[in-house]
Amino acid sequence: MCVGLDPRWEQLPWPVTIGREGGAAIASDSAAVSLPAQSHPGDDAAAYRLRAEAYLDFCCGVIDVVAPLVPVVKPQAAFFEELGPAGMTALAEVIRYAQDRGLLVILDAKRNDIGSTAEAYARGLLGRASPWGADALTVSPYLGEDSLTPFVEVARQRGAGLFILVKTSNPGSGLLQDLEAVEHAARAAEPRRIYNHVADLVEKLSTETRGQGNYGLVGAVVGATYPQQLAELRTAMPHTWFLVPGFGAQGGAAADVAPAFDAHGTGAVINNSRGIIFAHARKEYAERFGDQQWQRAIEAATLDMISQLNAAI
Amino acid sequence: MCVGLDPRWEQLPWPVTIGREGGAAIASDSAAVSLPAQSHPGDDAAAYRLRAEAYLDFCCGVIDVVAPLVPVVKPQAAFFEELGPAGMTALAEVIRYAQDRGLLVILDAKRNDIGSTAEAYARGLLGRASPWGADALTVSPYLGEDSLTPFVEVARQRGAGLFILVKTSNPGSGLLQDLEAVEHAARAAEPRRIYNHVADLVEKLSTETRGQGNYGLVGAVVGATYPQQLAELRTAMPHTWFLVPGFGAQGGAAADVAPAFDAHGTGAVINNSRGIIFAHARKEYAERFGDQQWQRAIEAATLDMISQLNAAI
Repeated sequence: MCVGLDPRWEQLPWPVTIGREGGAAIASDSAAVSLPAQSHPGDDAAAYRLRAEAYLDFCCGVIDVVAPLVPVVKPQAAFFEELGPAGMTALAEVIRYAQDRGLLVILDAKRNDIGSTAEAYARGLLGRASPWGADALTVSPYLGEDSLTPFVEVARQRGAGLFILVKTSNPGSGLLQDLEAVEHAARAAEPRRIYNHVADLVEKLSTETRGQGNYGLVGAVVGATYPQQLAELRTAMPHTWFLVPGFGAQGGAAADVAPAFDAHGTGAVINNSRGIIFAHARKEYAERFGDQQWQRAIEAATLDMISQLNAAI
Repeated sequence: MCVGLDPRWEQLPWPVTIGREGGAAIASDSAAVSLPAQSHPGDDAAAYRLRAEAYLDFCCGVIDVVAPLVPVVKPQAAFFEELGPAGMTALAEVIRYAQDRGLLVILDAKRNDIGSTAEAYARGLLGRASPWGADALTVSPYLGEDSLTPFVEVARQRGAGLFILVKTSNPGSGLLQDLEAVEHAARAAEPRRIYNHVADLVEKLSTETRGQGNYGLVGAVVGATYPQQLAELRTAMPHTWFLVPGFGAQGGAAADVAPAFDAHGTGAVINNSRGIIFAHARKEYAERFGDQQWQRAIEAATLDMISQLNAAI
């Protein structure tokens, strides 16, 4: 199980209890940290810094609760990037805070580019000696294999991992990923969906990077919201770790994600973001805990999901 | 013509002449700013800051030269992100510096995600009131239409633009983009390449966002290295701006990119990165100017490319 760190401003519990040692006191209601609607960037750096500080405090508070319960967290880069340089500084601190408490960190940034540019992303983001220090990174495959190999090479050097988008959890993922295609040189072949073509490439990269164990360092993102494709892809990709988003708020249940695991109950990382970090707003936990005890709501939701997963696999 | 700002450490001219007012003096050779090979992130923040400061000085020096000659520059996010938060701070300053000198800024970040996450990227990066303040952003389409519409919506609100990857310039772009595909419901239909399917979507979004003029706010990235596809896509996407990478170092020439323009000689933005900003290292300019006069080499290379483009269209 992986806890997704997606700090959405409107959904933060107020007041945010400071979760980390030495954390700065932050505003006790969201109105005090409202962002300007129109201004030149930089003019309101203080407002962004204050919000970034709140994200940092909130994420550290989540980490304090889940670190003894799960092995990995997944910060979503977009919510930090939204706040400009102050947010990106907070992201680096969140990653380090999680690692200092024994967690692995998958940075969900869906980066992609080619050649030496891809290498620059990988060198910046991957491995604990990098500036951002993530243990793994999500990567998008549209640019092809020469956009993926630089990420793989840096990951190998740094002892880090990758998760490449194969079949994503969103309702519109089929528009491109479900198209049926044959390679130009093999027009007589039976057409297969685009995500199958990408899966072949990911499984190849994963097999090439296997050590003594069954799995390579290149994983696949396969959504919980398409259980049939999840089962099909598990069979097609026996040496590939799966990162499975879409559990909880997006509709996936424990039975839906069970096919992501191998016969030994390993090989998959099931992510839940909103369903855990904003558990204080879910009916079943709001009644028991409320906003003030948002960390206890997170703990209860995490334990419940672990039970559900264990029962399903 | 667009000048790509891709500050690659090993290729910077030394010493970098300080191009902007009040710029800090930086090290006069690259060895003095070498990065640690192995360390915990944060431990060597000073080294990253020094390098980020050099990137900022270099990019501002490029901007000083090209601002009177071209309408737009394109910073590559990866090279700044490689330096951690210090690099991202420098990126925001580069964007602002360019705009203050009258340039439009396309941020080449190839972001992609879904729903409210895509919206967070867009709110952070797009429009001059955003923290990063870019006038346009490159976006990757693998996740489908519901990953693109949040970017389009924010761009529309902010008076900004997008360039969606359609057919990229790298040698391996065909692996996925050139697959011939049909929609599942239309297996009898004639298969078309993936980039054609993406082109349909981009042209639709561009048409939907047209104002009085011919072009919408959603553009397409189409590489200079595939001139035949460039011509084909220009016909298929009459209301779509083209951002054309691959000129110069990657092999595209003026004749190759001519088909990207419409009958009035508009509708395309031709980018050159290394061929301009590292002109001091190109044989024809190195002999005339050398490292010390790297800004004069940039000016000469820019004027030469403008002449080539004007002759070709």
